[in-house]
Amino acid sequence: MRRKGLASMAVQTVATSDTAKNVDLGPASALSCRECGERFPLGPIFACELCFGPLEIAYDLPEGDPEALRKRIEAGPANIWRYAPLLPVPADVAGKPNLNPGWTKLVQADNLGRELGVEPGKLFVKDDSGNPTHSFKDRVVAQALEAARAFGFTTLSCSSTGNLAGAVGAAAARAGFRSCVFIPHDLEQGKVVMAAVYGGDLVGIEGNYDDVNRFCSELIGDPLGEGWGFVNVNLRPYYAEGSKTLAYEICEQLGWQLPDQLVIPIASGSQLTKIDKGLQELIKLGLVEDKPYKIFGAQAEGCSPVSTAFKAGHDVVRPQKPNTIAKSLAIGNPADGPYVLDIARRTGGAVEDVNDEQVVDAIKLLARTEGIFAETAGGVTVGVTKKLIEAGVLDPALTTVVLNTGDGLKTLDAVAPTTGPTATIRPSLDAFRDAGLAR
Amino acid sequence: MRRKGLASMAVQTVATSDTAKNVDLGPASALSCRECGERFPLGPIFACELCFGPLEIAYDLPEGDPEALRKRIEAGPANIWRYAPLLPVPADVAGKPNLNPGWTKLVQADNLGRELGVEPGKLFVKDDSGNPTHSFKDRVVAQALEAARAFGFTTLSCSSTGNLAGAVGAAAARAGFRSCVFIPHDLEQGKVVMAAVYGGDLVGIEGNYDDVNRFCSELIGDPLGEGWGFVNVNLRPYYAEGSKTLAYEICEQLGWQLPDQLVIPIASGSQLTKIDKGLQELIKLGLVEDKPYKIFGAQAEGCSPVSTAFKAGHDVVRPQKPNTIAKSLAIGNPADGPYVLDIARRTGGAVEDVNDEQVVDAIKLLARTEGIFAETAGGVTVGVTKKLIEAGVLDPALTTVVLNTGDGLKTLDAVAPTTGPTATIRPSLDAFRDAGLAR
Repeated sequence: MRRKGLASMAVQTVATSDTAKNVDLGPASALSCRECGERFPLGPIFACELCFGPLEIAYDLPEGDPEALRKRIEAGPANIWRYAPLLPVPADVAGKPNLNPGWTKLVQADNLGRELGVEPGKLFVKDDSGNPTHSFKDRVVAQALEAARAFGFTTLSCSSTGNLAGAVGAAAARAGFRSCVFIPHDLEQGKVVMAAVYGGDLVGIEGNYDDVNRFCSELIGDPLGEGWGFVNVNLRPYYAEGSKTLAYEICEQLGWQLPDQLVIPIASGSQLTKIDKGLQELIKLGLVEDKPYKIFGAQAEGCSPVSTAFKAGHDVVRPQKPNTIAKSLAIGNPADGPYVLDIARRTGGAVEDVNDEQVVDAIKLLARTEGIFAETAGGVTVGVTKKLIEAGVLDPALTTVVLNTGDGLKTLDAVAPTTGPTATIRPSLDAFRDAGLAR
Repeated sequence: MRRKGLASMAVQTVATSDTAKNVDLGPASALSCRECGERFPLGPIFACELCFGPLEIAYDLPEGDPEALRKRIEAGPANIWRYAPLLPVPADVAGKPNLNPGWTKLVQADNLGRELGVEPGKLFVKDDSGNPTHSFKDRVVAQALEAARAFGFTTLSCSSTGNLAGAVGAAAARAGFRSCVFIPHDLEQGKVVMAAVYGGDLVGIEGNYDDVNRFCSELIGDPLGEGWGFVNVNLRPYYAEGSKTLAYEICEQLGWQLPDQLVIPIASGSQLTKIDKGLQELIKLGLVEDKPYKIFGAQAEGCSPVSTAFKAGHDVVRPQKPNTIAKSLAIGNPADGPYVLDIARRTGGAVEDVNDEQVVDAIKLLARTEGIFAETAGGVTVGVTKKLIEAGVLDPALTTVVLNTGDGLKTLDAVAPTTGPTATIRPSLDAFRDAGLAR
């Protein structure tokens, strides 16, 4: 919003967007500035020409007959495209080559609930590790891909330190796009393999993640980057909408009902704000009954700018230098931080954080109670849920949905030091008996 | 079958099974010897009292009205329990706590097809990496779990070097069972973490995988192992049936049609034989039209006892000492080898193998064409598919389904040495231009 450096880029990409007026992105009708409300035609732009505020999608949604819409959705495919009428995608999106993410499990977590003092049938985990590349990023990349197709881009790109790189690489491969993904040069080999295996170009940048981002911003403004869709930069307004599908799925899976409480991780804050947007749309369309719900944001203590601001009663989020094992949430200057504060306060929720030890404990708690092995971000949400219940802030008598946005296989290092065999023995019954494991 | 060492165990567990006569396992009516046909009441036994042949489930299947059955299935949940009327599970299985695996994507693989010379719409990948612990093992463990529940077992156990350990640990955690899993003591840390994170007991055995298996066999025959369900030993007849669900899903996802050709990996051979069993059941029930189909088995060259026997025209499978990167298929003495040979020959299929380099190439081929990152076992099936098409054995004009049974995140080591950044550059546009990546 107040990022002056974006000015030239915004203006430049606004100019480009004139050619994109007749794109078919379904119910998406325009881009609208979140700060000043100015509207722009759909195009690969992300910041307002007038005030540099972030742009988001405005829709002509199918209002009028909620029952018909509900039936149409229920008859749709078992992926996010069942919600195509509510997304910035063409109506025939399900027939195009993409990874078809979404419709992941909403797990009734009675075992976890028992340990947290929640009564049976009230606690749910929305488990997005079931997505094609095992994180919620598949949802957002799928939207960016359709925008890229609509705008005639041929290369899909992003800067990333993990989940996003794989999601972009995989989606581009399946869709027949070239991909070119930028990462810090010193990433762990495992992450490099996951980013590189889909066969797109992978470029290590000598520098840290900030250097990578700075380089990508330069590239977007340069002719060298022409025809490139950076999913989380010039395609960001479309990309971000993918998180709305989490809201849609949760409500449909609850039998077209709003949950009472949601616990959502905060990185940039975009996911949380778009889930709120999705819930509001469902209410407006009459797909769910309007009732109050509370949104709780979850951060890791080592990167908790929003939680810190929330607790201090501030409207402004002061940047932090991240130092946490929850690397997928380690954004020290979250773009949507102020909006998150607003939503948490408006809905009567809160923003809380847990430390790395609590994150690891929560990953293990979820694994041993529900058989779900979560990424560190899932440890953050489960840990924060526990903390908020213990503090009396989150009501254990109400329906609560906790998000797990990624897979534990991607952050093995977090639990490895404290996770190992119960015993190591010789292959004999005597040794087994002596180990005290027979029961 | 001719494993004399099992005799005492089989007899002992037959005795136990007398108490299990009234168990409710849905349409499962008895255990039947695959060799001599003798029938036994349902119980935790796996070998025939008379001839030591392997036991499998006999059913009273819901014959008579295929249309009604098809509708009932289609109205069921988006997991394997939609097929509960055809599985050894109680009718109310979907309401019990388990991981609800299955209903994974059948991906129309036109990009891969193009590279292999298959016309559009003919080649499909059944991608079981979408299961809860990201391998097909969730399907079989889910059946074993219901059998364990029915027989009153309280501990779920197995020997494993990988996928199975995680599947058992996760399923037990969710279902409220204790788990105790046995692994060789010198497994890589990543695999140990995946096996241990679900909080059950994990026991490292000082020895190799054969030593672990031998120890488990002893434990089953000893009072120390009382009340223990070893998913792939005393619960094996139930466990194995889980693979039938792959056949059901493939046909339903093809619009209730048999594929013309299937390419299936071979470890013990159980999966391939049960997929054939599942297809035969669908024909018998009138759920699909009867027509010929060919089943192709895929092995890695470094562990190819079945492929070797097939090519030599033998009925007997000669054990091999495994040496391949496809560790989830590395069973040198596959129990169901002779049955696999029989099915491949009866259906007009074949058994083929590829070497480790071809496995890695095939993993990358699938990743860059379809955005699916497969485990080494998936590299084996895709590699064999390519080889069989090139040899003119597999017909590229027919509908072909290739199985990917696990996730590439679990076998990163296989591709890591040859998968990395395209370039590493300074964060400048000049450096980017010089690297030749701008296009």
